[in-house]
Amino acid sequence: MPTLAHSVRLTDDAVVILDRRRFPFERVWVRCTTAEDVAVAIEDMVTQSSGPYFAALFGMVLAAREARHLAPADAREALGRAGERLIASRATNNAIGKAVAVVLAEVDKSPGEDLVDAATRGAWIGDERYRAKSRALGEHTVKLLPDNARVLTHCWADTYLIATVEAAAHLGKRLSFVCTETRPYLQGARLTAETLAEMDVDTTLITDGMGASVLSQGMVDVLLTAADRVTMDGHVVNKVGTLGLAVAAHAFGVPFLAQVQAPDPAARTAAAVPIEHRPGTEVLHTLGVRTASDKVRGHYPAFDITPPRFVTTIVTDRGPFAPDAVADYHAREEP
Amino acid sequence: MPTLAHSVRLTDDAVVILDRRRFPFERVWVRCTTAEDVAVAIEDMVTQSSGPYFAALFGMVLAAREARHLAPADAREALGRAGERLIASRATNNAIGKAVAVVLAEVDKSPGEDLVDAATRGAWIGDERYRAKSRALGEHTVKLLPDNARVLTHCWADTYLIATVEAAAHLGKRLSFVCTETRPYLQGARLTAETLAEMDVDTTLITDGMGASVLSQGMVDVLLTAADRVTMDGHVVNKVGTLGLAVAAHAFGVPFLAQVQAPDPAARTAAAVPIEHRPGTEVLHTLGVRTASDKVRGHYPAFDITPPRFVTTIVTDRGPFAPDAVADYHAREEP
Repeated sequence: MPTLAHSVRLTDDAVVILDRRRFPFERVWVRCTTAEDVAVAIEDMVTQSSGPYFAALFGMVLAAREARHLAPADAREALGRAGERLIASRATNNAIGKAVAVVLAEVDKSPGEDLVDAATRGAWIGDERYRAKSRALGEHTVKLLPDNARVLTHCWADTYLIATVEAAAHLGKRLSFVCTETRPYLQGARLTAETLAEMDVDTTLITDGMGASVLSQGMVDVLLTAADRVTMDGHVVNKVGTLGLAVAAHAFGVPFLAQVQAPDPAARTAAAVPIEHRPGTEVLHTLGVRTASDKVRGHYPAFDITPPRFVTTIVTDRGPFAPDAVADYHAREEP
Repeated sequence: MPTLAHSVRLTDDAVVILDRRRFPFERVWVRCTTAEDVAVAIEDMVTQSSGPYFAALFGMVLAAREARHLAPADAREALGRAGERLIASRATNNAIGKAVAVVLAEVDKSPGEDLVDAATRGAWIGDERYRAKSRALGEHTVKLLPDNARVLTHCWADTYLIATVEAAAHLGKRLSFVCTETRPYLQGARLTAETLAEMDVDTTLITDGMGASVLSQGMVDVLLTAADRVTMDGHVVNKVGTLGLAVAAHAFGVPFLAQVQAPDPAARTAAAVPIEHRPGTEVLHTLGVRTASDKVRGHYPAFDITPPRFVTTIVTDRGPFAPDAVADYHAREEP
């Protein structure tokens, strides 16, 4: 099991989160004793990708523990506020909203029950639901790949990546990966590369500018990334850099598969998705060391939006969809 | 005048070369007292881009000083050997050959003259010739840009970049730049960003994965890069990363201008251009610090090849050409 498969843990008095900013060079766990601590950890990028989802699940458990002594109505209100605070910690990541919702649903379902018991059960339901969907998504993805597929990926697809590699092993298919380093945070060089290597997958690293070269030279069979969000009309919102790779894949005839559990019914099209801009100074540094002239500013749009014409297939936990048909997801039966 | 405009200097007893591997964090000059020292400095990447051209010009002056006491025939032979040594220091950089040729031509033109005087004159002729071509190229480029043009550039266009900014000032046009950091060597973050800032040009830095985002969002009016080589059928060979930006510029309707003094008559098409692959370990480090998992290998194609369908205009010292007409360069009059 790769280290990052379980990098957010609930303990008796805290949520401990593996610090992905320092992994794999150091294996440091950040201890959060309040829901606010968890929100700050998410804001500070201690964890990202699916990490905030799990952190928010267990952050809600901490909020329930904090609110336990209040009158029921006040406790429920405090829990709602904690959920809003967690959601606000990363505006573009709507998995956090789902984590909060699953915990609140379980709390609201059983009014007389101890708040912490209900919230904890909700958190574990959310945990298992996410992992089951990831497993289904991984299996659907692998069915679309040839044996010995050479896969180009970008950033860090987290549970989707792990599930895809596990599904390939299960189905007897071999995969190899080329991954981009994904500046400025180097999720590809650190998280993806380390995790693939931990899973014994042949892995080659490139810088973010080399994707088009690899695609044009026939070095890969498919571009495969996660999506932070997919709109109902098939736009793929993902880590900045995805768009350039998708456009190059399209130009050189390489299919682009984007993985997402489900398209977002709240986002009819790209205009509905706010793009988070992070501090430009992060572009000017690498692992905390200044790597740019001290006379310039940086620009850091954290995500980009790939229009459906550059997307081949959107793979969900309910199977693959053409981008212009992804809205059918919500009509398709759960597997 | 930006620091890098004159980063190779001839003194009474040496050639001193600004170390571009450490600029702008440290301003260290490497002192070369022999032509062999200059060749080693070029091999060690103390200077790159147009730097080796100037270093070779003045390296030939050092060779002439070393050979001054020899009999004329022996001195000429020693000078020829020094030229071959300099050319061998970077096999793919054919500007070095031109630098050696201009010095030898001046020496051979005046057999009775003091060797050092002739070689020094040759070096300064070569210096001025290169700068004049760059000025012409810069002026032709600026004529193609709107006022207040917002320019996306990649890597480090060296004298072409400086000449373009100077021409814009001369013609009363304002420019602003977005530049990519250009991993793994960070030429964009260090050389381009610092130089533009030194020239009071508004400059924003992005990582190599953000170009398509900037292009798709209407943040720039033009993509402008140098080209290490342009083939006679309009392929642009330049620092890896150029291809992805060119494909994205094409997809989002932004023109791509590539600057080169002249297309290479020895390269009819892309197949004639060998692509240098550098050690993959360079992708795994940033400024000498490990930035990737220690379990993976790196892949480092130093250049990529942009097909003519993704290039709008090739700008030369003799003016602009459509990529499919760039072979006409050699028929066009010098300005």
